Amino acid sequence: MTSTAVKATTKRANDDTIRATALAAKAAGGKLARLGPERRSVLLRALADALRETEVRATVFAANALDLERAKSEGVAAPLVKRLGLDAAKLDSVCDGLDQLAAMPDLVGHPTLRRELDDGLVLERVSCPLGLLGVVFESRPDALVQIVGLAWKSGNAVLLKGGREALQTNRALTAVIAGVLEAAGIDRRAAVLLEGREEVAAILGLHGIVEMIVARGSSEFVRQIQAASEIPVMGHAAGVCHLYVHAGADPTMAAQLAVDGKTTYAAACNATETLLWDADAGAALDACVEALGKAGVEMRADAATRKRHPALKAATDADFGFEFGANIIAIKRVDGLDDALAHIAQHGSRHTEAIATADAAAAERFLAEVDAAGVFHNASTRFADGYRYGLGAEVGISTDKLHARGPVGVDGLLTYRWLLRGAGQLTADYGPGKRAFRHRDL
Amino acid sequence: MTSTAVKATTKRANDDTIRATALAAKAAGGKLARLGPERRSVLLRALADALRETEVRATVFAANALDLERAKSEGVAAPLVKRLGLDAAKLDSVCDGLDQLAAMPDLVGHPTLRRELDDGLVLERVSCPLGLLGVVFESRPDALVQIVGLAWKSGNAVLLKGGREALQTNRALTAVIAGVLEAAGIDRRAAVLLEGREEVAAILGLHGIVEMIVARGSSEFVRQIQAASEIPVMGHAAGVCHLYVHAGADPTMAAQLAVDGKTTYAAACNATETLLWDADAGAALDACVEALGKAGVEMRADAATRKRHPALKAATDADFGFEFGANIIAIKRVDGLDDALAHIAQHGSRHTEAIATADAAAAERFLAEVDAAGVFHNASTRFADGYRYGLGAEVGISTDKLHARGPVGVDGLLTYRWLLRGAGQLTADYGPGKRAFRHRDL
Repeated sequence: MTSTAVKATTKRANDDTIRATALAAKAAGGKLARLGPERRSVLLRALADALRETEVRATVFAANALDLERAKSEGVAAPLVKRLGLDAAKLDSVCDGLDQLAAMPDLVGHPTLRRELDDGLVLERVSCPLGLLGVVFESRPDALVQIVGLAWKSGNAVLLKGGREALQTNRALTAVIAGVLEAAGIDRRAAVLLEGREEVAAILGLHGIVEMIVARGSSEFVRQIQAASEIPVMGHAAGVCHLYVHAGADPTMAAQLAVDGKTTYAAACNATETLLWDADAGAALDACVEALGKAGVEMRADAATRKRHPALKAATDADFGFEFGANIIAIKRVDGLDDALAHIAQHGSRHTEAIATADAAAAERFLAEVDAAGVFHNASTRFADGYRYGLGAEVGISTDKLHARGPVGVDGLLTYRWLLRGAGQLTADYGPGKRAFRHRDL
Repeated sequence: MTSTAVKATTKRANDDTIRATALAAKAAGGKLARLGPERRSVLLRALADALRETEVRATVFAANALDLERAKSEGVAAPLVKRLGLDAAKLDSVCDGLDQLAAMPDLVGHPTLRRELDDGLVLERVSCPLGLLGVVFESRPDALVQIVGLAWKSGNAVLLKGGREALQTNRALTAVIAGVLEAAGIDRRAAVLLEGREEVAAILGLHGIVEMIVARGSSEFVRQIQAASEIPVMGHAAGVCHLYVHAGADPTMAAQLAVDGKTTYAAACNATETLLWDADAGAALDACVEALGKAGVEMRADAATRKRHPALKAATDADFGFEFGANIIAIKRVDGLDDALAHIAQHGSRHTEAIATADAAAAERFLAEVDAAGVFHNASTRFADGYRYGLGAEVGISTDKLHARGPVGVDGLLTYRWLLRGAGQLTADYGPGKRAFRHRDL
């Protein structure tokens, strides 16, 4: 055999193994789906309890220390190392999240419609899990537990692929998860950790088995996953959020919103990337420029803005509609609400858009007309988040319009089925001159 | 310029024109979205009234006569010609459908969640139109009016591309639609009829402008559209529906369900393609074979079935999981419920699956475990239909699991936005040791 042939054979064997694993995961997921609300809650609490045990924590932290050591020795950037670290506080918060999920209403098997079509012919639309999720995420190991929690709450099995830098921690967490599953009599393959790039490629090819891919990471990362798979991918392709400082804005509030939106976590997808200001909002602009400057934000301004603030750096066209992911903001003067709406329609990424104004009519028009997952009035774009929205946790934020939009919690991991219970009814008996449907909602 | 260069230039100019049309349609759609429930209903009734006017009908029927004449002269197959024909009865039923849609509850701008996150910080999740739909459909011209009705009800603009054979009829109907729009002060481009294959290709490329493609036609047609576009495509990739005749089935009912499922419209995606029977359901099988035979259905049976009915044609492996779209049915013996579930999981297309049985426990297990858009007990698979479900009308039937599943009505043409109204709240003020969210549903 040639070396290429050996590689091809190895790849095929690997793909077959992952396919078999995926089918086993799916079957295990079916059991999760049929457990019922109470036993799903028990499972979530059991995982929280396990992750609070001293011995378990020691193992997880030891694994995390190995990952951190390796990351530092390989010169991984400091912010990434920080995200990689898993301490008692982070783990406590993950455990609290699991308990919260356990306490939330269960949405699986919930009839969202019941309709009598005719005597003894009853239609129900019932929510159900998607089945098997593929989750590909970068660095943060606490995300693994959150995702598993959401998957269990929604009755889904999950194939997980974390970042290479968190491998030891992810293995330790997955071992705890497997123990909890097995103690509940469920195949541990309801939550499988995959390793290695070939395995990601194999997941992406499991069209018809994996129902949805959740991609958590940079926009670039999400786009790569989307391009590589026929399976629907949930994730945010980009987060270009605007703060529009309307003529009616309070200067102090506008400045605070700009600073909060830009600086509390500049790399987040819900960070404010562009500030638009009305010609009549000069005082508010001045307050924003002063506050952003104090906060150490680099401002890139259009010519009209620089007329008022000549010290600001000049923006290029490419700075508008750009996700800096850093302490940089683009600033542009607009000619009123229509112009702001047009700019956002052209340059926004449909993630989250905010207006600062005391003018209720302007605010309501902005809320009515902006096409984005989140549209905010006098609130920081950084509020666009599953925890802040009270969803318990989030799988991610979707900038797609179909299925789930914005921060995605348990809802986004569900689909529904139409169940029809009859007594031998035939379609041939209905129609003009024959039986008519009753269509009475129950 | 070379001929290739001329073609490329023409193509580019054509794409630019369609892009401009799409943007104008989208803007017109925004107006539809903001019309409000009452004026949208008025618009739907105005279209129904217009299509009832004698003069209008004369024009539409004259156009339809031209299409029919051309189709016949070109030797188009008789069933297609039948679908193409638009008579007073069909048009009456379309008009009634529009009136029904007008009378149904309006789902646009409906808050599906209201939550107080904190003092003066209120989150709403509000339904809204997708924006602009691309609809590509084959032959039936009445579908055009139904789709426009659903688009208006949901506040969406629509780009329509019908079959070449219905061109004159579609033009006449679109002229009526344009007149109704303009009389209501709405840009006629809220519903645009496109012609020619190049225009379809151009629509499929409008990613980020067209939010969803609705494909109505054969499975092959839907697959082609899906392969050609990055835009999400709603449609059924295949309709391989099973009728499982369980040991507890009543023979007469089983036979009637088989005949109704197979013969009332064999080309429909919800037609029954495979009959599975339990070894203990021999009498029910006999009844099915007799009834299907009388109804002129070709039966292709596995070896176990042919042992009992040696006169039946032998099935090949390829007959199972195959959408015949004709008066042909595959028949296979299974070893009980588990085996039936496994066969359906492997060969079904997640469209609609039915069990015939008097055994309630078996029926409930079937309903709980089959992963399909529709799961039926003692009812014909042909009930899987938007009209029969009481959705008013249907855009199509989706075999995807995300967004919309099964027959898709107005719901499937909507998305939602998260609206947050605040008073200058900042995310930096929340967190451990700081303010806590209230998360109180209103």
